[in-house]
Amino acid sequence: MTNLIYEQPLNEKIRSYLRLEYLAQQLQANLDHDHQHRCFDPLFSLCELTERCDYRGEVLKDVDRQLFALSKWQSLPSIDDEQIAIYISRLSAARDILQVALRPGHELKQNRFLTALRQRFNMPGASCNFDLPQLHYWLAKPWHVRQEEYQDWMSQFSSLLAPINLLLELTRQTTSYQSKHANGGFYQGTSEQALSLIRVKLTAEQGCYPTISGHRNRYAIHFVRFDEQKHSDQAIEFELATCS
Amino acid sequence: MTNLIYEQPLNEKIRSYLRLEYLAQQLQANLDHDHQHRCFDPLFSLCELTERCDYRGEVLKDVDRQLFALSKWQSLPSIDDEQIAIYISRLSAARDILQVALRPGHELKQNRFLTALRQRFNMPGASCNFDLPQLHYWLAKPWHVRQEEYQDWMSQFSSLLAPINLLLELTRQTTSYQSKHANGGFYQGTSEQALSLIRVKLTAEQGCYPTISGHRNRYAIHFVRFDEQKHSDQAIEFELATCS
Repeated sequence: MTNLIYEQPLNEKIRSYLRLEYLAQQLQANLDHDHQHRCFDPLFSLCELTERCDYRGEVLKDVDRQLFALSKWQSLPSIDDEQIAIYISRLSAARDILQVALRPGHELKQNRFLTALRQRFNMPGASCNFDLPQLHYWLAKPWHVRQEEYQDWMSQFSSLLAPINLLLELTRQTTSYQSKHANGGFYQGTSEQALSLIRVKLTAEQGCYPTISGHRNRYAIHFVRFDEQKHSDQAIEFELATCS
Repeated sequence: MTNLIYEQPLNEKIRSYLRLEYLAQQLQANLDHDHQHRCFDPLFSLCELTERCDYRGEVLKDVDRQLFALSKWQSLPSIDDEQIAIYISRLSAARDILQVALRPGHELKQNRFLTALRQRFNMPGASCNFDLPQLHYWLAKPWHVRQEEYQDWMSQFSSLLAPINLLLELTRQTTSYQSKHANGGFYQGTSEQALSLIRVKLTAEQGCYPTISGHRNRYAIHFVRFDEQKHSDQAIEFELATCS
């Protein structure tokens, strides 16, 4: 049984965080395995997103809010002090780095190789040998050399991506999964507390995926049969976690 | 010593062929190795290019021209008859298939899964779990299942890509490499016959790549040092083939 987790952000902040986290995962995947020229895609996506929007202010505010909440929890008797202390120290460290960091991706703009590549990468099939002879040259470098360079480029985003990672980890930990049943492929729920993230876990063997919509206190889940790309009318067993 | 080959098309037709050939190679690479969601990029690029321009007419004309030239060569005494006969039969077979084929990519437009993906694939970082839950579902399928589906999608372009492959093979075979020397990182040449493709072979160890420009009867090659991304002023040894 393959369990798949689907997530849906219910506010813009978590939406941005999930997108950045996804790109961070892609960067790591490209460092672990040689995906050739395909490795540039998440790098340039991160450049574009961080140019459009400077996430630092929002992330710093969010880290402070979390630190405040954690320090309050620390005084509660039923809480695992040690775990909280670890999070406080990790969040504080990440905040200190982000506070003094240059705007992420700033240095990559000075890199003439990357700049030339980026200009062409959004055009269909435009990273040919003759479009970008420098790419052809770069790809012939030994993998461990390319890995080092890639790690260097990646590292320019880590001041931003590390705290986001932590914040999402904390968000996901606020709730555990509960078994649910969707009649006719549909489920809806409400919450008194404002929600930020809906998580749905289901087995691939049921042949469908969820499309989730919602806002703050309400959400709805439609299950879609993959093969027909149509809403399922069957009963679906799944697990649900709603994070605030 | 790593020998790298750089190519520069000198007319629009060969430029298109090289671009399509490059995408065909990418498709094959994605069939050979699991590059996850990255496999969709060349597929959608091919969709876009073949929607913009129907290459079939031009390719068919070109195949006929080549068949005519080959049949004339066949009667010359100094020619390897057998080799020519093989090319004539391969080209004829490819032409027959292309003549009756639907416009490449036509059927992929009916595929709702691919259509949904394609709409988002050009946005930065927009193939997240929550953007495209169906992609998340698809990627969890066993690799051999995805391979089969991918092969099916690929095959829709093979009627176009197979003859282009042959035509480029023939173009490249018209000339063999000759050793050349670029003083001060620069080389230029002329040809009485109109040229379609310049090929430059050089070792990666020289630390530079060529930028080639030209049109029909003239061409110039500047060698660029990769590390500085600046024109080299050194003597470069390379091999050159100019194809008509």
